[in-house]
Amino acid sequence: MSEHTYKMIELVGSSHTSIEDAVKNAVARAAVDEKKLRWLEVLETRGHIEDGKIAHWQVTVKIGATLD
Amino acid sequence: MSEHTYKMIELVGSSHTSIEDAVKNAVARAAVDEKKLRWLEVLETRGHIEDGKIAHWQVTVKIGATLD
Amino acid sequence: MSEHTYKMIELVGSSHTSIEDAVKNAVARAAVDEKKLRWLEVLETRGHIEDGKIAHWQVTVKIGATLD
Amino acid sequence: MSEHTYKMIELVGSSHTSIEDAVKNAVARAAVDEKKLRWLEVLETRGHIEDGKIAHWQVTVKIGATLD
Amino acid sequence: MSEHTYKMIELVGSSHTSIEDAVKNAVARAAVDEKKLRWLEVLETRGHIEDGKIAHWQVTVKIGATLD
Amino acid sequence: MSEHTYKMIELVGSSHTSIEDAVKNAVARAAVDEKKLRWLEVLETRGHIEDGKIAHWQVTVKIGATLD
Amino acid sequence: MSEHTYKMIELVGSSHTSIEDAVKNAVARAAVDEKKLRWLEVLETRGHIEDGKIAHWQVTVKIGATLD
Amino acid sequence: MSEHTYKMIELVGSSHTSIEDAVKNAVARAAVDEKKLRWLEVLETRGHIEDGKIAHWQVTVKIGATLD
Amino acid sequence: MSEHTYKMIELVGSSHTSIEDAVKNAVARAAVDEKKLRWLEVLETRGHIEDGKIAHWQVTVKIGATLD
Amino acid sequence: MSEHTYKMIELVGSSHTSIEDAVKNAVARAAVDEKKLRWLEVLETRGHIEDGKIAHWQVTVKIGATLD
Amino acid sequence: MSEHTYKMIELVGSSHTSIEDAVKNAVARAAVDEKKLRWLEVLETRGHIEDGKIAHWQVTVKIGATLD
Amino acid sequence: MSEHTYKMIELVGSSHTSIEDAVKNAVARAAVDEKKLRWLEVLETRGHIEDGKIAHWQVTVKIGATLD
Repeated sequence: MSEHTYKMIELVGSSHTSIEDAVKNAVARAAVDEKKLRWLEVLETRGHIEDGKIAHWQVTVKIGATLD
Repeated sequence: MSEHTYKMIELVGSSHTSIEDAVKNAVARAAVDEKKLRWLEVLETRGHIEDGKIAHWQVTVKIGATLD
Repeated sequence: MSEHTYKMIELVGSSHTSIEDAVKNAVARAAVDEKKLRWLEVLETRGHIEDGKIAHWQVTVKIGATLD
Repeated sequence: MSEHTYKMIELVGSSHTSIEDAVKNAVARAAVDEKKLRWLEVLETRGHIEDGKIAHWQVTVKIGATLD
Repeated sequence: MSEHTYKMIELVGSSHTSIEDAVKNAVARAAVDEKKLRWLEVLETRGHIEDGKIAHWQVTVKIGATLD
Repeated sequence: MSEHTYKMIELVGSSHTSIEDAVKNAVARAAVDEKKLRWLEVLETRGHIEDGKIAHWQVTVKIGATLD
Repeated sequence: MSEHTYKMIELVGSSHTSIEDAVKNAVARAAVDEKKLRWLEVLETRGHIEDGKIAHWQVTVKIGATLD
Repeated sequence: MSEHTYKMIELVGSSHTSIEDAVKNAVARAAVDEKKLRWLEVLETRGHIEDGKIAHWQVTVKIGATLD
Repeated sequence: MSEHTYKMIELVGSSHTSIEDAVKNAVARAAVDEKKLRWLEVLETRGHIEDGKIAHWQVTVKIGATLD
Repeated sequence: MSEHTYKMIELVGSSHTSIEDAVKNAVARAAVDEKKLRWLEVLETRGHIEDGKIAHWQVTVKIGATLD
Repeated sequence: MSEHTYKMIELVGSSHTSIEDAVKNAVARAAVDEKKLRWLEVLETRGHIEDGKIAHWQVTVKIGATLD
Repeated sequence: MSEHTYKMIELVGSSHTSIEDAVKNAVARAAVDEKKLRWLEVLETRGHIEDGKIAHWQVTVKIGATLD
């Protein structure tokens, strides 16, 4: 935690079950491309509705990753 | 998804168990009056506390519905 | 609910499992010092990431307590 | 205060005399159509000026009403 | 412009051609149900993209209408 | 109310008695320099405290004036 | 007004009569515990409604106090 | 673009035809009094409605001008 | 629209003619690098002024793209 | 600090060296035209980059001045 | 960094010399009462002006401290 | 400054000494990957505290770069 620089990436994760799972899916996808993910911030929570029910959650997150 | 017009309604849903259930309760109640609900946005998450514990969650949502 | 005055305190609760548990932990800790907690508002939801996974959630809440 | 759902309506009330009266006028008008008004939040305070004086106050409020 | 009360309704209008037309479509639809529309405020401007082009604009507006 | 242009000026008015009077004082002062004041918006409400009491209110307002 | 440090406390004051009185009640209560209150900022104005009328105003304020 | 100071002025421009024209009218009016206008930012887009149609657009802009 | 993850990219598009064209230019440029653009949100509208006229519009947009 | 009225002016100051100097330059320029400057608030901090380095800082400030 | 709870305190620090020193003074004062300070966020930067110069900076910070 | 498109990247720079240096470090790191950096905006200023002192500043910036 010295003089690092971090880059912030913004993703929208989706899940049929919960807000937490939507965030986890976004983090899991980010981890494919970026090795050193450090923290996340939830920006926006939305949901898609079908037949009067929430079909899936869509959560926008900013994720911070250490730049080498 | 062509040149539709949508109306936004704002509700506060409650639940003893989770944030997601508070949102689901709001959507379920909205579905009684409005047939074509399409999406939701969470605006505010609050909780009512009794005896040092969260008695229920109160979540404010905006819900978009297609206008015929 | 007459002419009471409330004070607002701001805490960050953590949890390995869910956003709701992070909030509950913050409320439980606040209840040690303050007797008359009444409501909470979620201000910010963050997460700490280790090895590409969410190690714990960190949720900032404002909690209202009745002042005698 | 159990698992109720509330709907939020947004009104602009006016008054020649004070901000509080503009809010009261909005609540009084809302009470004609909705039976179970519960709380209000002031969103915006404006005023109309004529001949260098405030002719009337215009206050935008969100009002929460219990849905049966 | 005396002591009127106004209600605010929120709509999302769409258009293939421009932001202004998306707003006009929302106002035209609102005018079917409400007789005394007075002013609007643009809250959010979005667009749906298909094949790398903007298929239609989606503009969220709040519209103020005089309550009798 | 045709194709006018308005300029917005920002003032802080003060009063020992009320929020409304602080706004009125700001408008009265603005009316000395500008002839065609049209509307105002309250941006911020503050107060100066002396000996545990509110000595005066300080209200920041934006005022719109017609440009000839 | 030299190199002082101030602490900010956040309170919600209530009043049956006016927004100003709700703020005064919050300041009066804060003055019991803190000797050197200096200024306040209004954060949020709410009201509790009973039988279609405003039963009391609830105003959230931040108050700055000199730290010795 | 060295160590200049700029002043920001805030105007509301109007137009019967488009958002862009409302902004242009504000800039044209500002250019009468200020010689060195440099850039603008759109703050708010509103419209006045008559007979269920948008009679004119009202766009609030901040304009930056070089101070000599 | 199942459990996709989207990434958000932020661009500033420019145009001499209109706000819509500035957005279109940003989308067209984004489409060179990203195949599956889905939606956009306008964040900020600015303009560059030369000789008292708007030389070009600069519009900041966030664009959502499906991640495979 | 009695019932004064203040006007707020908004400036952007620049400096090659620091954020503080950019603010000082804005205040120094404002002091040429206005005699009774009282306080400032930083609204926005930007920087101009040339050859991968910060060529100068640009800081937007609101400055309050006593009106006689 | 496991399941800790943190409390947030809000202070305004002052300095004649720089924004950083105003923050340092707030942290130093907070460290007298609280042992386990962990991080800070700058909320607001203001300055007091005397004789057309910045007499001191006033910076509002939120500071997070571990609760045992 | 004609019809360019810019992309915005978001970084967090760190420094033991000052806010300006934290920003410079972020810009220097961005300049490794991107050739045509043009401007930056400070979004958030934080600090990490150790032993009651600020160990390093962490400043979040958005940086605009010309896209060819």
